[in-house]
Amino acid sequence: VRVCVLGAGGWGTAFARLLARAGHETILWARNPDTARALDRVRENRTYLPRVRLPREGLAITSDLALAMACETVVLAVPSFAVADLVEQIVPLSNTGKVFISLTKGLDRVSRRTVSQVIAATLPHRAIYALSGPSHAEEVGRDRPTAVVLAGSDLDLGRTLQVAMATSRFRIYLTDDIRGVELCAALKNIIALASGVSDGLGFGDNSRGALITRGLAEMVRFGRHLGVRSETLFGLSGLGDLVATCTSEHSRNRRVGVRLGHGERLQEILSGMRMVAEGVYATQIVAEMAREQGVEMPITDAVWRLLDGAVAPAALVDEIMTREPKREGE
Amino acid sequence: VRVCVLGAGGWGTAFARLLARAGHETILWARNPDTARALDRVRENRTYLPRVRLPREGLAITSDLALAMACETVVLAVPSFAVADLVEQIVPLSNTGKVFISLTKGLDRVSRRTVSQVIAATLPHRAIYALSGPSHAEEVGRDRPTAVVLAGSDLDLGRTLQVAMATSRFRIYLTDDIRGVELCAALKNIIALASGVSDGLGFGDNSRGALITRGLAEMVRFGRHLGVRSETLFGLSGLGDLVATCTSEHSRNRRVGVRLGHGERLQEILSGMRMVAEGVYATQIVAEMAREQGVEMPITDAVWRLLDGAVAPAALVDEIMTREPKREGE
Repeated sequence: VRVCVLGAGGWGTAFARLLARAGHETILWARNPDTARALDRVRENRTYLPRVRLPREGLAITSDLALAMACETVVLAVPSFAVADLVEQIVPLSNTGKVFISLTKGLDRVSRRTVSQVIAATLPHRAIYALSGPSHAEEVGRDRPTAVVLAGSDLDLGRTLQVAMATSRFRIYLTDDIRGVELCAALKNIIALASGVSDGLGFGDNSRGALITRGLAEMVRFGRHLGVRSETLFGLSGLGDLVATCTSEHSRNRRVGVRLGHGERLQEILSGMRMVAEGVYATQIVAEMAREQGVEMPITDAVWRLLDGAVAPAALVDEIMTREPKREGE
Repeated sequence: VRVCVLGAGGWGTAFARLLARAGHETILWARNPDTARALDRVRENRTYLPRVRLPREGLAITSDLALAMACETVVLAVPSFAVADLVEQIVPLSNTGKVFISLTKGLDRVSRRTVSQVIAATLPHRAIYALSGPSHAEEVGRDRPTAVVLAGSDLDLGRTLQVAMATSRFRIYLTDDIRGVELCAALKNIIALASGVSDGLGFGDNSRGALITRGLAEMVRFGRHLGVRSETLFGLSGLGDLVATCTSEHSRNRRVGVRLGHGERLQEILSGMRMVAEGVYATQIVAEMAREQGVEMPITDAVWRLLDGAVAPAALVDEIMTREPKREGE
C-alpha cells in the first residue's frame, strides 16, 4: 500500500523508514521545503534522528502536501500543537476512503481533545487509529526490538494494518481502547518530567521506583475516571511507555525534568530546545481537568506548580515523598 | 529500642546504619568473626557496601549470636538459602516477646516457603514482618530518598515500627499482605534477570519497557492465583521494586542477566560472584509452582530454560517478543 507520514521529526522519520523497509511505498512529508530537500539529498535526519540511514528505495521525501496525500494511509507525526492546523489543511485532500494513524503523544491545548478526536471532529466517517507504546525513535530507527499497540474501533481493518506494519523487530498489539491509549501517552510524559526532576536532584533508582509506582497509581485514578480500560493502563501504552520514558536517556520530557531539577527555569530550557517536550503542555491540561473533576493527582499538580515557578524542585519531591497516606493503597 | 541485624551483606549493613542513625541501639551480626572484627575496626563494609561510612555511635558489630540476640527486634538480612539454618540457630535465643523483620527477597528452596513462613513454622506466636520495596543498599547507605512497605498482620505494632524506623529519607508504608509482599520480592528478580538478558543482547529501552509490562502481567497472574492483593502487586514491593531492579546498575540479578545475554554460562558467572543473585533460585521455584498450578508464565519459564542452558538468550527474547497473543490484555 501507499503510505504517507506527515511530520519529519524523530518519530515520523523513524516510522517512515520502518514502513519503507517493510515494503510499503512511503512518502515522508516535511513542512519546510529546505528541510525536505536536505533530507532527500543526505538521507539522514541530522537534526532529529542523527546517524540513522534512510533508504532511497521505497521512501520519497517531499514538502508537497498534495503529493504526500495521494495515498491510502495517512500517518500523523506532528507535535500536538500542530495537529489541529494540519488536519484543517488536509481536509480537501482527504477522501473518505483514507485511513488515519496518529503517532502524536499529547492533547490539543484548546479543545483538550485527543488527536483522534481532533481528526474525527474535522474529518468524520474516517477510520482513525492511534499507535503508542515504548518506542523511542532512536531505537526503532536502529531496529532494536520494540512492541507497541495500535488502537482503533474497527478491529478488522486494524488487523490488516497490524500485519502490514509489523516487522520481526517491531511487534504490534491491537486494542479498541483508542482514547485510553491516547490519554496514557499524554499522562506518562507528566510523570517522566517528575522522574527527571528526581534524577536532576541527584536522587537514585529507589526514588524513581517509588515515583513510577505512585505515578502509575495517579494515571490509573485519572484514567478510570474517564473510562480507560485497565489493560490499557497496565499495558504497553500505559505502564510500558511510562517506564521507558522515565528511565531513558532518549526521553525529552525526562531531560526537561532533569534540568528543572538542576534549578534551571522552564523558559530557559524550552528556548534552547529544538524538539517539543509534550509533557509541559499535557501537565497543565491534565492538572486542570483533574481539579475540575475532583481526581486527586498530587504528582501532576506538583509538576504544574514547578513548571509555573511556584515551587522549588526539592520542595516538590519532598512533598511527594512525605505526603500523609501511610497505608499502602490508600 | 535495641535492634539487631543478622547478616552483614550490603542490605543488612545499610539497614543497620539506618537504624543507628535513627537513634536505635543497633547490633550488626556477621557470621564470620574475622569479618565482624574487620567491620568493627574500619567501619566500612568494603566487600558488600564500599565507600559508605558506618557510625561508631549506636552501632555495635559482633559475630556473637547470643550477644546480638539480646534485643527486642530482630532483623533478618541473610540470603534465602541461609534463612532456615539461621532460624534454627536462634530458637533458644528467641523468647516470645521478640519481633522479627525479614529483609530477605527470596523463597526457601526446600519448602518453597516465604521467609516469614519459615520463621513462623519454627518460632510460632511471634510478631513477624517483612520489609520490601525499591531499596538498593548502595542508595539507602547514602541517604537517597527511598520508600518501602512494611508488611505484617499486626498493624498496631506495625505502626510503632513504622514510626521508629522511618527517617526523612526513608519512608515506610504499612500493609498486612505479608505473603504478597514476600512473593513480589521473589518474583521481580526473575523479571530482572530477563531484563538484563535483553540489555546484554544490546536491545534498548523499548524492549525493556515491553518486558517490564509483560513481566508485571505475569507477576499479577501468579500473585492473584495465590491471593496476593492488587495494591501489593501494583505497589512499592511489586511494580516499584520491579522497575528499580530492572533498570538499576545496582541490581545483581539484572547484572547476571546481562552476562547471560553476552553468552556466558551460569556456572561461570556464579563462580565469580561474591553476592547472591536470588532470582536464580526463585526462577526454578516459581517456574515449577506455575507449571503445577497451571499459571501461564512465559518469561519465567523462558528464564528457567536459559539458566538451565536449554535455550540461547537470543531465542528467549525472540520468543517473548514474537509470541502469539495479538490483542492487548489477552
